[in-house]
Amino acid sequence: MKNRRDFIKYLSAVALASSIYLMVDTKKVEASSIPIVQTNEIPPLPWPYVELDVEEVRKLGHLGYYAFACSGGAFWAIIISLRDKVGYPYTLLPLPSIDEVKQAVKEKVHINVPLIHGEGGAFGWGSLCGALNGAGAAISMVSENWKEIGKILFRWYETFPFPSDASNEYAVNHQFLVEKYKSDKPLPRSVSNSVSCHVSVSRWCVKSGYASGSKERSERCGRLTGDVAAMAVELLNADLRGELDTVAKLTFTPETLECRICHYKGKDYEMGQFTRGFLQCESCHTDMRPHISSNTLNTAFDVPIGTWSLLAAGLAIVGTGIHLGRKMLNSRKGGKGGES
Amino acid sequence: MKNRRDFIKYLSAVALASSIYLMVDTKKVEASSIPIVQTNEIPPLPWPYVELDVEEVRKLGHLGYYAFACSGGAFWAIIISLRDKVGYPYTLLPLPSIDEVKQAVKEKVHINVPLIHGEGGAFGWGSLCGALNGAGAAISMVSENWKEIGKILFRWYETFPFPSDASNEYAVNHQFLVEKYKSDKPLPRSVSNSVSCHVSVSRWCVKSGYASGSKERSERCGRLTGDVAAMAVELLNADLRGELDTVAKLTFTPETLECRICHYKGKDYEMGQFTRGFLQCESCHTDMRPHISSNTLNTAFDVPIGTWSLLAAGLAIVGTGIHLGRKMLNSRKGGKGGES
Repeated sequence: MKNRRDFIKYLSAVALASSIYLMVDTKKVEASSIPIVQTNEIPPLPWPYVELDVEEVRKLGHLGYYAFACSGGAFWAIIISLRDKVGYPYTLLPLPSIDEVKQAVKEKVHINVPLIHGEGGAFGWGSLCGALNGAGAAISMVSENWKEIGKILFRWYETFPFPSDASNEYAVNHQFLVEKYKSDKPLPRSVSNSVSCHVSVSRWCVKSGYASGSKERSERCGRLTGDVAAMAVELLNADLRGELDTVAKLTFTPETLECRICHYKGKDYEMGQFTRGFLQCESCHTDMRPHISSNTLNTAFDVPIGTWSLLAAGLAIVGTGIHLGRKMLNSRKGGKGGES
Repeated sequence: MKNRRDFIKYLSAVALASSIYLMVDTKKVEASSIPIVQTNEIPPLPWPYVELDVEEVRKLGHLGYYAFACSGGAFWAIIISLRDKVGYPYTLLPLPSIDEVKQAVKEKVHINVPLIHGEGGAFGWGSLCGALNGAGAAISMVSENWKEIGKILFRWYETFPFPSDASNEYAVNHQFLVEKYKSDKPLPRSVSNSVSCHVSVSRWCVKSGYASGSKERSERCGRLTGDVAAMAVELLNADLRGELDTVAKLTFTPETLECRICHYKGKDYEMGQFTRGFLQCESCHTDMRPHISSNTLNTAFDVPIGTWSLLAAGLAIVGTGIHLGRKMLNSRKGGKGGES
């Protein structure tokens, strides 16, 4: 008996054989007790979503961070809430219960969960914020509209000052679910303008004066994990009510919109469509000299700027009204290119 | 009966009750046919790993990209291979079979899988390369050594010219598992020096001359997805044999090592420990002027450079041999800070 399916088949067979025997031979068991032998296929994604309590999930996200760091913590907070309310098929996933996690945190016992790899921007690399990665994975498992919800969550993250007032208050008042806090002080808040762990952590450290290896920085990321899981659930709840558009829209900064006149995922290389993404351009590209015709620099990719400066001048002459462009671009959710 | 667990309990109860009835009342069934009612907990992670065929996984990664894009594709390629060889508990996950995916690609039918959210650097954002995200999630589910394996995979990605010769040859010779190719040309290869989707795609476009929305760029990412899944499996196989260290080590570039003398996750803010990550610093931080004492710039975080330039001068005077520092740093796998 090599797997769960075989085990269920075995149980079914025993139950069925026994029941049939009883029916046929002793007539002691009703036909209704014969279980339907299901085909046993795992339901495909997305799995059912029901409205969740935003504040409960915020607290679970914070607890989850203490147990699994940011990515596993955010994923666990959302999915364990659904398991507790919906049951199967969420019961198929290898996730400890809330009580088990409280105990594990108390006793400093390590437990692995799905998405744990995303911690510290994935394996500590400092790339995508793990809270976004874990919450994003959960969103894509529970909603048909995962692409839209995820984008709104990501832009919100870039512009929100973490940690939230709500999380700071829970910590100060000891209303989170941990017994011993890394720090129960109200922590300074900062906007990252980026979904990068490296940038998000660095900007917060510079704003707060705390070192990256400090307990306060770790606590900040715990509160942030709760905040991101909570916002994900707020968006999923709104989507469930058909009100996603009223909660938030995907917007771009004026700087990014100007870049996106030429630079987005598309089929025309010469026009600048040699890149992709929805990142805030100005978060990394602070040096705009490649676009000034008098400079002698190459672009970030060591390409002579001639083409770009001439193109920029041409665009200025044609005068394709920036505001009109912004309006058009803000309504464009994705790039023009059709490939993934 | 709200979930799978209840269903199994129900089956067990029917089987048990029927069997006991038979034993007690009719003596027709032996005691050995009574199934052991297992506690039915889902096995905690990591789940068992067995050696996989690297080239098979490369082909499955490419097929997976056609069905689920980069992140879901890499995750699916590794986990479906384990499901086919190991069975339970991998049978618990909502993953279509290889034949179902071939059919879905042929008929352009959409299927969702776990980790699909990571596509295009997560929701198309251009952050962490989705192939790394999906492969990373799989690694963390199947090995105790996931942190070490993931870091080696990430550094390899930064320095490897994608797509591999192997993938180019499979495409040219139509040896991948798709019937219709986005492109079956041999594609130019480029090194990204970054785990960022935005940077990886942009550098390849500039190297190749193909636009980001072109079929060739999409095909490049499909081959890359196969290559990343294949390398993940190569590392997991080596780890299984206890030979991970002989395959690859986590190294740093000379430039990054020099940055890491001061900048890493640690507890001393004044020494520069206000950041974190294992990214190649020079991939984004091309402007090193904040470290030249005569300049008038602020740092990337708008902090006056005085402290840093004085510190740099001090370090130069003290003459803490860079090579000694490099040696020490290369042996340090993580930061000094103990917090996640």
